Amino acid sequence: MTFANQGRQELQAIEMDADIVIEGGTAITMVDGQDPLPDTSVFIKDGKITSIRKTDCKGLQPLDRRVEIIDARESIIMPGLINGHTHAAMTLFRGFADDLPLRKWLFDKIFPAEAKFLNPETVYWCSLLGCLEMIASGTTCCVDGYFFQDDTVRAVHESGLRGLIAQGVIDFPAPGIKDPKDNIKVAKEFIERWLGYSDLITPGMFCHSPLTCSDRTLKAAKEISRDFDLPLQIHLSETSEEVYEVMHKTGKRPVHYLEGLGLIDETLIAAHAVHLDDDELEYLRKNKVKVVHLPESNMKLCSGAGRISDMVRMGLTVGLGTDGCSSNNNLDLFCEMDTAAKLSKVIDNDPTSLDAGTVLKMATIWGAAVLGLENEIGTLETGKKADIIVLDLNSPSLCPIYDLLSAIVYAANGSDVKDVVVNGKVLMKNRKFTVLDSAEIMAEVKKISRNIKL
Amino acid sequence: MTFANQGRQELQAIEMDADIVIEGGTAITMVDGQDPLPDTSVFIKDGKITSIRKTDCKGLQPLDRRVEIIDARESIIMPGLINGHTHAAMTLFRGFADDLPLRKWLFDKIFPAEAKFLNPETVYWCSLLGCLEMIASGTTCCVDGYFFQDDTVRAVHESGLRGLIAQGVIDFPAPGIKDPKDNIKVAKEFIERWLGYSDLITPGMFCHSPLTCSDRTLKAAKEISRDFDLPLQIHLSETSEEVYEVMHKTGKRPVHYLEGLGLIDETLIAAHAVHLDDDELEYLRKNKVKVVHLPESNMKLCSGAGRISDMVRMGLTVGLGTDGCSSNNNLDLFCEMDTAAKLSKVIDNDPTSLDAGTVLKMATIWGAAVLGLENEIGTLETGKKADIIVLDLNSPSLCPIYDLLSAIVYAANGSDVKDVVVNGKVLMKNRKFTVLDSAEIMAEVKKISRNIKL
Repeated sequence: MTFANQGRQELQAIEMDADIVIEGGTAITMVDGQDPLPDTSVFIKDGKITSIRKTDCKGLQPLDRRVEIIDARESIIMPGLINGHTHAAMTLFRGFADDLPLRKWLFDKIFPAEAKFLNPETVYWCSLLGCLEMIASGTTCCVDGYFFQDDTVRAVHESGLRGLIAQGVIDFPAPGIKDPKDNIKVAKEFIERWLGYSDLITPGMFCHSPLTCSDRTLKAAKEISRDFDLPLQIHLSETSEEVYEVMHKTGKRPVHYLEGLGLIDETLIAAHAVHLDDDELEYLRKNKVKVVHLPESNMKLCSGAGRISDMVRMGLTVGLGTDGCSSNNNLDLFCEMDTAAKLSKVIDNDPTSLDAGTVLKMATIWGAAVLGLENEIGTLETGKKADIIVLDLNSPSLCPIYDLLSAIVYAANGSDVKDVVVNGKVLMKNRKFTVLDSAEIMAEVKKISRNIKL
Repeated sequence: MTFANQGRQELQAIEMDADIVIEGGTAITMVDGQDPLPDTSVFIKDGKITSIRKTDCKGLQPLDRRVEIIDARESIIMPGLINGHTHAAMTLFRGFADDLPLRKWLFDKIFPAEAKFLNPETVYWCSLLGCLEMIASGTTCCVDGYFFQDDTVRAVHESGLRGLIAQGVIDFPAPGIKDPKDNIKVAKEFIERWLGYSDLITPGMFCHSPLTCSDRTLKAAKEISRDFDLPLQIHLSETSEEVYEVMHKTGKRPVHYLEGLGLIDETLIAAHAVHLDDDELEYLRKNKVKVVHLPESNMKLCSGAGRISDMVRMGLTVGLGTDGCSSNNNLDLFCEMDTAAKLSKVIDNDPTSLDAGTVLKMATIWGAAVLGLENEIGTLETGKKADIIVLDLNSPSLCPIYDLLSAIVYAANGSDVKDVVVNGKVLMKNRKFTVLDSAEIMAEVKKISRNIKL
């Protein structure tokens, strides 16, 4: 409910009671069919949006009240962005291995470095750095999957971000799980430890891929996720080689292999999903599987471009993610939106493919739907959680503006984000971090990085 | 000459005489084979680099001297970026028409809007905005081609940027040139007016394309450019349709058509150059034609990806550009480098394609060579012009750093640029513009934009 129909008196009472007012901006609510709302203020109380309405020209009187004012004049007020797939702690390996053949990158660099250098301490600090970077670029919620995830939960919890934080499951010796036989047990205990710990954090499982997890592991992960009523993440058909290997091993294409194991349903979050045939696409759609598109990582590792415009046309729920910093190498979803739109156009040979409004949905309300949180976050609506960002338009690259969605997608970058609110708490104000200590985090990660040598 | 071999006394005299010292950063000189130079200071006098050396641990004494100090601690000192093809005044049409079929975009939106709204006043202010945006994102030199270019020259001159500013030539009625019969005359007079006016600005001609200029116009433009010893710009083989139409009209592929007219030589700057066969590529290489790659524009308008890694392998000189803001929609060359590297990888199906160092050359020393200025700009070397930027590493997305080139290309964006010096003049310091009045320029462009309706 926007521009609520409450009586004036009732509305005044609600607004006088607000904790935070984001005042005087142009609201892009991302509610279907709703135009931008100029000169709008958003009122927040106890973590939720309580009112969205035309700014009172008389102004508020902040000095008389304990309300926190965020000045949104000459700014866009919009839902925080949702990073549908990342590995926050991989900031540790940002720029550690680039421009290499894929197998050399993975087997000679990333896997050995992970085995040698990941531990609770490094994962904690590098996850904090990932959170810092997400906040700085307007992301308010992330879907994370990695190892030593207790420490990523600690970091995300401290940062104030919202997230689905999943413990990695792989049938090889992995960071923190020497014997792969323990992988499901470790993940189950991780879920039990963190379920209900915080309103903002949902624990979960992340199966590395259909090739690196056995059918037994995949089935067990699904069963536990179902028992806890949690989404299950997986890397699906990222490379064509992976598809061939799954077919060679199982006689089926990956989607149908997972179907046979009972994984294909509306709680599956399939990251990458680059190499799919028509039949697999239709099967994902019919079963409401969630897909996360990772254009920059897919380009950098030359995995492929994905059939994103087909998915959107068919009505699949498609989110957007950055992947980890070892294959991107930043967590800026504004850049990712721009790349998603442009890549789709050149691959489809169609300049109308994935327009600005569509990729913005991928990064907001569809991203929320990937997590099953579309009724909680992803739009600006009265009653929803206050996960909100303010984008400063006072930058040469955001002038002039004929179309706000175009400005957000094709001209802005994460550095244009001025303020970040998650669950009604201010995490960045006027580009100053209000919760995390950026100097300390960056100093710690630099210290850790000095030992990273293979 | 870097870390010059002069005697200590002579060096001290040079350094004591500097106008500007960029102090204590890591220098990426872009000199072939030279590693990053940590703890380095760059001395500037009368527009030129006079010394590059390890920072004196005792420090300078700025209070005793009139030298201007730019603090580059925890920063990268590098050559300013060179935008090899843009239309600065098209900031006016940023976001005016996106996600449209190509012909509708061009014929229903851009051409009519240009005809209706371009005039000396709008071109002046919108070129200033383009300059502002280039400075803000670390570009120190641009290759521009458009109409009413007297006013773009005025703007670029005021901004302090370096540029090759070319008058557009097209065989249709064009902004400022009602009768196409006058197009060559107008362009020739433009050159005569501005040649020698400023050390920083070179005037020139820009033929719109082999299809929109007659053979007579192309030959005349070439002849005049040769007489004045100036580069000639052209949009070459941007779309496959254009190639087919040229073949239909002339019986030749575009490169060979231009060859027949005498245009193919080392002073031709071919922008886009997307659709070329092997024979054309080899012919461009043999004749040392300069190519400018525009990945984001080529993606957004679905023109194609180009054969950039082939060109680099063959030894062509390839620069990098943003194109105008109606097809990008910003002028950030940092984003353009990132996109160039990633697009090449996914198109070539090779993650080693166009590595970070290669795209950084495209945006610096190769960009300088596109203009024939490789002995003046494009690297940090004693004796070269002081076109230098300082990139602030104090950002979460630039932490940690294992490889500076990777950080610049894959993790940074234009907002990380802290200071900009062109020809020994500071244009931005600590992200504050020191020459242009950003508030005035943005206010003027906003005012102009309110009337832009078709």
